[in-house]
Amino acid sequence: MKPYIEMTNEELHEEFKVMDREYKKFQAMDLNLNMSRGKPCREQLDLSMGMMDALSSDADLSCEDGTDCRNYGVLDGIHEVKVLMGDMMENNPDNIIIYGNSSLNIMYDTVSRAMTHGIMGNTPWCKLDKVKFLCPVPGYDRHFGITEYFGIEMIPVPMTPTGPDMDLVESLVSSDSAIKGIWCVPKYSNPQGYTYSDETVRRFARLKPAATDFRIFWDNAYTIHHLYDDRQDHLIEILAECKRAGNPDLVYKFASTSKITFPGSGISALATSLNNLEDIRRQLVHQTIGHDKVNQLRHVRFFGDISKMVEHMRKHADILRPKFEAVEEIFEKNLGGLGIADWTKPAGGYFISFDGLPGTAKRIVDKARKAGVILTGAGATWPYGRDPQDSNIRIAPSYPPIDDLKLAAELFTICVRYISIKKILENRAEEA
Amino acid sequence: MKPYIEMTNEELHEEFKVMDREYKKFQAMDLNLNMSRGKPCREQLDLSMGMMDALSSDADLSCEDGTDCRNYGVLDGIHEVKVLMGDMMENNPDNIIIYGNSSLNIMYDTVSRAMTHGIMGNTPWCKLDKVKFLCPVPGYDRHFGITEYFGIEMIPVPMTPTGPDMDLVESLVSSDSAIKGIWCVPKYSNPQGYTYSDETVRRFARLKPAATDFRIFWDNAYTIHHLYDDRQDHLIEILAECKRAGNPDLVYKFASTSKITFPGSGISALATSLNNLEDIRRQLVHQTIGHDKVNQLRHVRFFGDISKMVEHMRKHADILRPKFEAVEEIFEKNLGGLGIADWTKPAGGYFISFDGLPGTAKRIVDKARKAGVILTGAGATWPYGRDPQDSNIRIAPSYPPIDDLKLAAELFTICVRYISIKKILENRAEEA
Repeated sequence: MKPYIEMTNEELHEEFKVMDREYKKFQAMDLNLNMSRGKPCREQLDLSMGMMDALSSDADLSCEDGTDCRNYGVLDGIHEVKVLMGDMMENNPDNIIIYGNSSLNIMYDTVSRAMTHGIMGNTPWCKLDKVKFLCPVPGYDRHFGITEYFGIEMIPVPMTPTGPDMDLVESLVSSDSAIKGIWCVPKYSNPQGYTYSDETVRRFARLKPAATDFRIFWDNAYTIHHLYDDRQDHLIEILAECKRAGNPDLVYKFASTSKITFPGSGISALATSLNNLEDIRRQLVHQTIGHDKVNQLRHVRFFGDISKMVEHMRKHADILRPKFEAVEEIFEKNLGGLGIADWTKPAGGYFISFDGLPGTAKRIVDKARKAGVILTGAGATWPYGRDPQDSNIRIAPSYPPIDDLKLAAELFTICVRYISIKKILENRAEEA
Repeated sequence: MKPYIEMTNEELHEEFKVMDREYKKFQAMDLNLNMSRGKPCREQLDLSMGMMDALSSDADLSCEDGTDCRNYGVLDGIHEVKVLMGDMMENNPDNIIIYGNSSLNIMYDTVSRAMTHGIMGNTPWCKLDKVKFLCPVPGYDRHFGITEYFGIEMIPVPMTPTGPDMDLVESLVSSDSAIKGIWCVPKYSNPQGYTYSDETVRRFARLKPAATDFRIFWDNAYTIHHLYDDRQDHLIEILAECKRAGNPDLVYKFASTSKITFPGSGISALATSLNNLEDIRRQLVHQTIGHDKVNQLRHVRFFGDISKMVEHMRKHADILRPKFEAVEEIFEKNLGGLGIADWTKPAGGYFISFDGLPGTAKRIVDKARKAGVILTGAGATWPYGRDPQDSNIRIAPSYPPIDDLKLAAELFTICVRYISIKKILENRAEEA
């Protein structure tokens, strides 16, 4: 089929009728499918059921140094879980604080602490007239949610397949001392699945911020979340690179086992410089006596070491890979060559980023919803939920069973074609 | 023996020699005992080992409404754990948010949110020139730690066996709009073990604060933590009382299972009015996707219902009661009638509050430490760690094995007598 843009109005009307018929077929199926969030599916959760037996009533719940994990104490995590998370994050255990079940919560708390107390002796952000964050777009809605909640002005920075537009990042960060942070998902990015190139990471580590309390918020959520054994992205480890560049305190790095064991019942961690850790511990000691050490021990006993965790991730990949490939195949089959859509083909992570024609995303999501398929809200990948092009949609293939997923993807492509035809015809009418 | 104050200097010197000999005997024992924190002992932790088998790898980890507890979601807790915690807290499950493993963390977050965003539309506290909290004294050091960390001015209010001095509380709260909160441990208070009287609770519920964003921070940490079956304190439920008094939004109430199952691996909860809950959920949605539901389910499956939890608490009491009684017996035997000390005899909770002569607490704690017994730092029970009388010491009998505890209590009383004699002699010398 030729690109829509090359079709005559008559041809488009004809094609529209076909799409309308197809859409109605799907509508008649009374679907109830959800592709909106990066949720693991049941088969993935089943992979970690052994966790439930990792600690039994006759187990010794002491950790290696003899601490009884059942009692109070150990503010920043037991040593063996720091080792495990350190191996996963490629960081020295000494640079790590283990938190509770949610890395989002660490990020929120990190921003909140900067608001009320400032970073390493700098003015608390709540005392400043203006605080700004750079937001690579499209990006992760929950990141933007935190900064929006704290009244931080968000400045979009375009993403590219090698990472954020670094010319722009460098120029903004070095010239505006109100810019205090940047949200990054550096590996298998949300939603594109892009991984920052070596050059991008090196440039991040060499930033010369106008603000001494500028920090990179490095959410390495998908560090070992590959889809392929042979085709894996590699990301330069940012803490080490910052240290080499003489900028050791520049970055807060976040990770969790949410998409390794159980979302909501995993272990999260922050890795950063010793200076930053000292700054954070001064606050943490007032916030908690310590996070859940029994769950930390459970994770250590379940995995043993990083090699088992990597093996475990291969099983996740075996479940996720066919889903990503099914979506990509259906997109290619139904949308390839029509000139109305682009999408990413990630080698890891949880999302595919879809771009339709300008002004179609909201209507596509709406159209799909009316046939029973819930997608991430259009605009969600932009600060304030406002995609200026109204073109980006995040596709989350992980949760639905594969047959449902195929149905949802088929329906989605029909919605894309349906709305794109309408949009092209509208554009032509306006121009006429 | 007659009161020290009635002794001549010669008699006191003689007594001092005896105490010095006794002290040196203890010192020679090379003790290493800790009575500093309200930590459950190993036998108490063993009571909850069944928790580890409550969910096994072949268990269905779905909750009653079908939600898979292993996956993301459920911001404020699964229903059945709200019911269980509601029964424990005497609150409607609809008034409850379940949090993570630490009620201290909820309190911290509650103050932090008020700092950055204000309470129910009021000015964020960080934008105000002055924010003050009332602090019943002696009180809980970690409460004071939170308010001190946020730069909130702390005003001590004397505690009495029926609760804080309510004349003073009413007068301060109604006249000063900078007063935004009061820290309360209303039942088996930390450190006295006092329970607020009915009148005190009624007066709390009827406060007419000058500040519309004044809140009572009601840390009901020891709600079912009785030491006796037949001698239990009863506390009027504050949310219901506030509602009856037409002040439904006046209180945030906190509780946890930290001293029921495992400290650090329990469930914490906030109970408050629906208005307050709505205010809080607007923030919580940015902070987390949800707390650990698997651990919530684990608690529900382990206990079943509140009657089992109460039964479980009887077993805790059976371990703790002899420890409290041993300490009280030794105090009575060694200090009774000497006119140098008072102490409380709680029917629940984790602490005994000890008051020595003015100007002795620091030296007693120091003296005990030098013989290998760690007590809570003198002053810890006061804001900023400053006990103006230097007389109060918190005694925590729960953690040491009972034989160690008896040794520690014996040593403590020797230190009290030793330091008290010195102090009396010093006072006499000064007056002379």
